[in-house]
Amino acid sequence: MELQVLDVRALVREALDDGRSPDMGALRAAPPHEVAEALSELSPTELGSLFTRLGDEALAELVAELDPFDAARLLGKLSRAQAADVLEEMDPDDAADVVDEFRPQVAEAILEEMEHEEARDVRDLLSYPPESAAGLMTLDFVALNPDLTADEALAQLRRVAEEAEQVYYVYVTEPGTNRLLGVLSLHRLAFARPWTPISELMISDIAKVRAEADQEEAARMLDQRHLIALPVVDDQDRLLGIITADDAADVLLEEAGEDIERLGGSQPLEEPYMRASVLHLVRKRLPWLMVLLLGSAYTASVISHFEDTLAEVIALSFFIPMLIGTGGNVGSQTVTTLVRAMAVDEVRFRDLFRVLRRELMVGGIIGVVLAGVTYLRAWMMGVGWEIGPVVGLAALLIVVWAAAVAAVLPLVLARLKVDPAVVSAPFITTLVDGTGLFFYFTIAQMLLGLD
Amino acid sequence: MELQVLDVRALVREALDDGRSPDMGALRAAPPHEVAEALSELSPTELGSLFTRLGDEALAELVAELDPFDAARLLGKLSRAQAADVLEEMDPDDAADVVDEFRPQVAEAILEEMEHEEARDVRDLLSYPPESAAGLMTLDFVALNPDLTADEALAQLRRVAEEAEQVYYVYVTEPGTNRLLGVLSLHRLAFARPWTPISELMISDIAKVRAEADQEEAARMLDQRHLIALPVVDDQDRLLGIITADDAADVLLEEAGEDIERLGGSQPLEEPYMRASVLHLVRKRLPWLMVLLLGSAYTASVISHFEDTLAEVIALSFFIPMLIGTGGNVGSQTVTTLVRAMAVDEVRFRDLFRVLRRELMVGGIIGVVLAGVTYLRAWMMGVGWEIGPVVGLAALLIVVWAAAVAAVLPLVLARLKVDPAVVSAPFITTLVDGTGLFFYFTIAQMLLGLD
Repeated sequence: MELQVLDVRALVREALDDGRSPDMGALRAAPPHEVAEALSELSPTELGSLFTRLGDEALAELVAELDPFDAARLLGKLSRAQAADVLEEMDPDDAADVVDEFRPQVAEAILEEMEHEEARDVRDLLSYPPESAAGLMTLDFVALNPDLTADEALAQLRRVAEEAEQVYYVYVTEPGTNRLLGVLSLHRLAFARPWTPISELMISDIAKVRAEADQEEAARMLDQRHLIALPVVDDQDRLLGIITADDAADVLLEEAGEDIERLGGSQPLEEPYMRASVLHLVRKRLPWLMVLLLGSAYTASVISHFEDTLAEVIALSFFIPMLIGTGGNVGSQTVTTLVRAMAVDEVRFRDLFRVLRRELMVGGIIGVVLAGVTYLRAWMMGVGWEIGPVVGLAALLIVVWAAAVAAVLPLVLARLKVDPAVVSAPFITTLVDGTGLFFYFTIAQMLLGLD
Repeated sequence: MELQVLDVRALVREALDDGRSPDMGALRAAPPHEVAEALSELSPTELGSLFTRLGDEALAELVAELDPFDAARLLGKLSRAQAADVLEEMDPDDAADVVDEFRPQVAEAILEEMEHEEARDVRDLLSYPPESAAGLMTLDFVALNPDLTADEALAQLRRVAEEAEQVYYVYVTEPGTNRLLGVLSLHRLAFARPWTPISELMISDIAKVRAEADQEEAARMLDQRHLIALPVVDDQDRLLGIITADDAADVLLEEAGEDIERLGGSQPLEEPYMRASVLHLVRKRLPWLMVLLLGSAYTASVISHFEDTLAEVIALSFFIPMLIGTGGNVGSQTVTTLVRAMAVDEVRFRDLFRVLRRELMVGGIIGVVLAGVTYLRAWMMGVGWEIGPVVGLAALLIVVWAAAVAAVLPLVLARLKVDPAVVSAPFITTLVDGTGLFFYFTIAQMLLGLD
């Protein structure tokens, strides 16, 4: 891996030093993030000279592969006119994502430099909420009149062939209103009898999504139905654009990554990790840590409430971390499994009682085994025969309790429209820590005859 | 959502009761998992009657959308001949995934019932390791001779049009050897001058993947380059099949889901959650819990080592859960953020020292803030002015330590070829619990002048 990065870097540098343009084939073949890294190390002058040598089209091709954040940083080093030239060559949806990363004044200045039509497309796309289906769509699609014959349709397509290299579906819209009537594949069109009207070739009963729908919903629809593109329509059923499968996959992967960070107890980063400033990291982590710390502060009160018990049998304190740790681990396992199952819609609120019953059974079995192990551990410590049963029984109760809480909470939160991934492992741990301690000391009081 | 399930169920049942076949349009439009649920509730007799009414082709279309596990359960209710008929109508890669879910004897019996050619395709696909690129590929592609003209190529395509409805790329292979020479899009072919040889239209410098490559590597390549399909070749560069973008997206999503489960401290389930038996869940969770419990067992020794200190200042025990909980939370945040960044290749081993420096700074800032809060908490408990500084200082040290451990471990593990996602939140928590306690009591001894 390291070698490859050096290669991309060397490839670009050597070409610039020799006054030639770098080999586009090699750049296309290199992993995008390595190209991003190599380009990001160039000074504005070097990047300007790369722009002159490669031309806007080739540079646009490379930039389109980058993360919008990286792409904006790169284009920011070029003159505004050069940046505008590159953006014009990109798909409008990719260009919009990049423009969105600039500060508003800079974005406006670059849009001013762009050709009117391309700038309008980008502005149109930027006007939709970024998390909506419309925010994900591209305007690069072909819509035809239903009265055309297959032959006429092909002739029209041939005319736009240059821009529409990636045409797989052709959409059919009502002339005038632009209402979506149907879709047909290029394949079907190419092999139809020439005089057939495309209204006879198209499929009318098609999957589509409303502009204001959540982008995740649109992405999931594309993924589940194995579509290559999904049309986006407004409330009048007018065709606005299409969402392509690669963009949909990126949304779903992004979403999964954010779930991972949330489950770890952190707000998802908005920038690549290595680019995020230390303060950005602190801002994403500290709020949850504060909440968790304040949440766990009551554990101090629980223990202090049992101060006399503890003073009498100091050995009880030895097992506090082990017991609450095990409760947290069981809760964390249960919650992540459930959040994952909920993300793919395998589990829903109406399954609450089935899930709870299952988790109580799983917790019961696991609890019995772990109770045995903790009992043995206490026995090995040589802290008196009467401590073992207390620790073992507490382990069983804590495990079952943690499993139950972790089973119910994500489903209830989802029902309340809260993202269940906020019930992170740390959250569950904090929640079951105090109750677990309460069980532990209560059992101790009862079995040891203390008060 | 609930309503829709009832609808799909009602749709199927009513049709069967009335002796007609259910509306395929409605079934196609319904979310696949709801169709799966509705079909899974049918008895073998009902399913057999559905088969008779809908026909193998329509049923294959529905079955192809299901999870292979669900699909196999459904087909298992049909006669072997009927199951074979349905599998014949599916894409060979989907069929192979389903066949793979049956017990070997049942799989063999069904394959025996299938048409020779279809059975051979499925057997071929099953011969590759399921996690390899070849295990992910489909055999539904079109390969042409480079000497054909565009017109001849289109004529050939027209002949296979029925089976190859989803043709977007046409591959060009060397006659005889079957070596991959290039690729061209249907679009390019459709609009080329009729007499141009396809060897002039094709792109020769194409992305491809070796059969034995990891399926994740192939999927990532498809995703990063926004391809619709990726050819799979053997060590002689012979074209074996193609991987399509939708299958690639599924692999990456599956992978992300497994990372989520691992980070939660569980082995990933191999079945949908609601179908997995209680014992399957126990088997996936108990081994890690045992490891973690045994790992945390030394915390009891740490505390018992400081028994005298604790007996003297019993209030020190109040803050044990809060302190080790906070350490675990910081570690969990750091580790999940890093594992995510590593999954998308943003962070690599050579970044180790940069990552460590960043996390030490982040940990330092967060540590100071949380030290203040824990100090205040101790002060509010009214446990004596001398406890606050001990707790605050311990919090600072534990937070920085947890951040450092969580920063280094995933990178080192990845270097040792261990999946960094096994460094779950529970794992880090367990690891920093004992060391955190050691810091805490040592600070207490020093500041309080105990021994």
